[in-house]
Amino acid sequence: MKTVVWETLSDSQKEAVLERPAISDGAAIGDAVNDVINLVRKDGDAALKALTMQFDNVEPESVAVTTAEVDAAVARLGQGIKDALQQAYNNITCFHRAQKPQPVRVETMPGVTCELITRPIERVGLYIPGGSAPLPSTVLMLGVPSQIAGCQKVVLCSPPPIADEILYVARLCGITEIYNVGGAQAIAAMAYGTESVAKVDKIFGPGNAYVTEAKQQVSNDHKGAAIDMPAGPSEVLVIADTYANPDFIAADLLSQAEHGPDSQVVLLTPCMAMAEKVASAVSEQLTVLSRAEIAKQALGSSVIIIAEDLEECVEISNRYGPEHLIVQTEFPSELLPLLDNAGSIFLGAWSPESVGDYASGTNHVLPTYGYTRTYSSLGLADFSKRMTVQKLTPEGLERLAPTVETMADAEGLDAHRNAVTVRVKALQAAKEAREEA
Amino acid sequence: MKTVVWETLSDSQKEAVLERPAISDGAAIGDAVNDVINLVRKDGDAALKALTMQFDNVEPESVAVTTAEVDAAVARLGQGIKDALQQAYNNITCFHRAQKPQPVRVETMPGVTCELITRPIERVGLYIPGGSAPLPSTVLMLGVPSQIAGCQKVVLCSPPPIADEILYVARLCGITEIYNVGGAQAIAAMAYGTESVAKVDKIFGPGNAYVTEAKQQVSNDHKGAAIDMPAGPSEVLVIADTYANPDFIAADLLSQAEHGPDSQVVLLTPCMAMAEKVASAVSEQLTVLSRAEIAKQALGSSVIIIAEDLEECVEISNRYGPEHLIVQTEFPSELLPLLDNAGSIFLGAWSPESVGDYASGTNHVLPTYGYTRTYSSLGLADFSKRMTVQKLTPEGLERLAPTVETMADAEGLDAHRNAVTVRVKALQAAKEAREEA
Repeated sequence: MKTVVWETLSDSQKEAVLERPAISDGAAIGDAVNDVINLVRKDGDAALKALTMQFDNVEPESVAVTTAEVDAAVARLGQGIKDALQQAYNNITCFHRAQKPQPVRVETMPGVTCELITRPIERVGLYIPGGSAPLPSTVLMLGVPSQIAGCQKVVLCSPPPIADEILYVARLCGITEIYNVGGAQAIAAMAYGTESVAKVDKIFGPGNAYVTEAKQQVSNDHKGAAIDMPAGPSEVLVIADTYANPDFIAADLLSQAEHGPDSQVVLLTPCMAMAEKVASAVSEQLTVLSRAEIAKQALGSSVIIIAEDLEECVEISNRYGPEHLIVQTEFPSELLPLLDNAGSIFLGAWSPESVGDYASGTNHVLPTYGYTRTYSSLGLADFSKRMTVQKLTPEGLERLAPTVETMADAEGLDAHRNAVTVRVKALQAAKEAREEA
Repeated sequence: MKTVVWETLSDSQKEAVLERPAISDGAAIGDAVNDVINLVRKDGDAALKALTMQFDNVEPESVAVTTAEVDAAVARLGQGIKDALQQAYNNITCFHRAQKPQPVRVETMPGVTCELITRPIERVGLYIPGGSAPLPSTVLMLGVPSQIAGCQKVVLCSPPPIADEILYVARLCGITEIYNVGGAQAIAAMAYGTESVAKVDKIFGPGNAYVTEAKQQVSNDHKGAAIDMPAGPSEVLVIADTYANPDFIAADLLSQAEHGPDSQVVLLTPCMAMAEKVASAVSEQLTVLSRAEIAKQALGSSVIIIAEDLEECVEISNRYGPEHLIVQTEFPSELLPLLDNAGSIFLGAWSPESVGDYASGTNHVLPTYGYTRTYSSLGLADFSKRMTVQKLTPEGLERLAPTVETMADAEGLDAHRNAVTVRVKALQAAKEAREEA
């Protein structure tokens, strides 16, 4: 990891240090993904089977995973991992249940009542990547909020063979529609539907460049599906003072670096000695990791920044906007009110990123690549939508009528005005009729 | 308006009746907008001035509107419209303030605390269209929540000359950065910044096909800006039973139809006599409207659907997912729990759409074109973002450690496991040291 001293940098050097590497998504991926989407829309299940053979080199008996297959997976799985997944499920459920919104209902004027109500998104699709190891934790992060939100249809796609752990968590989350399909073809299947795979309204979950591109493409088509958020490589930023434990920090940096060669790792500290201790602890811990080669590549583009003081660390962090932000200082909670633009924040020495990745209760699907400025940590809200409701009494309408009529006049919209006037006249006529009687 | 009887339709006819007209956004618009964006990125203010001359045929003295110009606009404006705008501002403020989220903080396990915190989006851009009449109501709908959320920088762009009403509302909402620029060039300026116009993180507001395309393009570029929601033509759907007043319904349908020739208008009723009365009231009211020609075109592609009963009306409405949903039935609140997929709902005879368009307190920026299935009515949440926070005590970490270690093993992520293990070992070592002492 290279070390830079912030105050010695020019503005453009500062900009360059915090710059993320470009994602090389080029036109080639776009065209390839477009072809896959068109094929799935045209040939449905047949396309899914052919593409699965081509990309995953397996031919599942059917696109859908059967209940018997899930039963068998559950039976095969050891009790240790079952207990761990159950504990994580419990914690994630606890935190996401606490996110249920309070109903909003106010009388803005006497007789004018406005409400904000929430409804689950009816049909959601969860994408779980395959790859070197199964990711049951991602099933928890997507499955638990879909279950709490009350989505009626929850579809899960993952490249075959689907690991027992994934099927076990799917069952914990009440997901019964599971399909042996991965990659861009899975996104296409969920966005448009096939004979086997139900069309959904919104697609969630991480994936490689092809999956990301497919999500982008289907979300730009109004007959496709909405998506959770734009994606980018995973990142961690650690703010540390002299009170931090360099071994802990090194372990945190490495746990991010092992995600992939494009992972971003940043350490911010006002203490040069701490920077040196962390760098040496990283080198030491690296030697025993099974994914050392991946971590080494990630560390190549990572950086330690020496700042003036903790305040400047906070400023730089807010400017970078990391996905994961770990604060290892003497009084971490004191910095919290100043922290902005982060996906998830880990306070203090005993809160490593991996607890949030798995089991503290927070969601590990987070905005990255600078999207923390505008996007939120995935949560219950992403599986529902908010609608407004208004109900006026006759008196409420009479009270509000002059305002609406004057504004409609100003905007030159006669019919908008008339929708109020016709009602006020009816009320006045009724009143006069009563008075005459 | 054509009338169809739902039960006589085949499945594909039903689909066709509820189909929105295709938006002809073709490649031509895409290329033109892309050119404008590139020009603004290259030439900044100079490009804005040239494009404003080209498209709006005016040459403002400066890109920025001065405080003196706003002062003059405020002085010119009549008291009647000021009072109306102030009343609308008060009601919209009341309802959006009520949307402030409750803090979420739970202990998912003893010693494991998780929080959901909210931060304003730092820099937002508001786009206010020009055209035949000024739209101060849209400034209210975007300006009020940005003010309540506490966004630090709020930029407003609108094609010159900017109406006094718009400048007045901008001042009510505390907006001081106002620019004489409209169209795709305004979106480009806010997404990337120019010498005069500050770059923002997220852009809000309606617009024509060019503005919509520009928003889409900048939101697909991670150096651009996020946007509020995808756009489509405005829509209303009315559910009415025999107790409804056909004159009121006709006025509501027309207030939607006058928006534009592509506006969508649907009436759902189980009562054929009501359908006929509404159709005849529409013809009658149409004759006196200043925007009758626009309304007539919109009505050409609109439809009255005769359903079996109110339950079927609800089903069809949920399937269509209207932007505005007006319920004029004997007991409108009883239908509310069944209603899904709508932007804003207007309950009962005294709640015309125009009260929500202007002043009841609800927001008039709503998902349309079927996006109600997944997108929310614009609200306070769109001007902020949610971050999660976790803090573990040493005991909390020890309690959670076996879960995280087991899951990290299952996912083959050594370093994730190690970030926990290194801490647990340190705690054990400290405990042993204490015991020895």
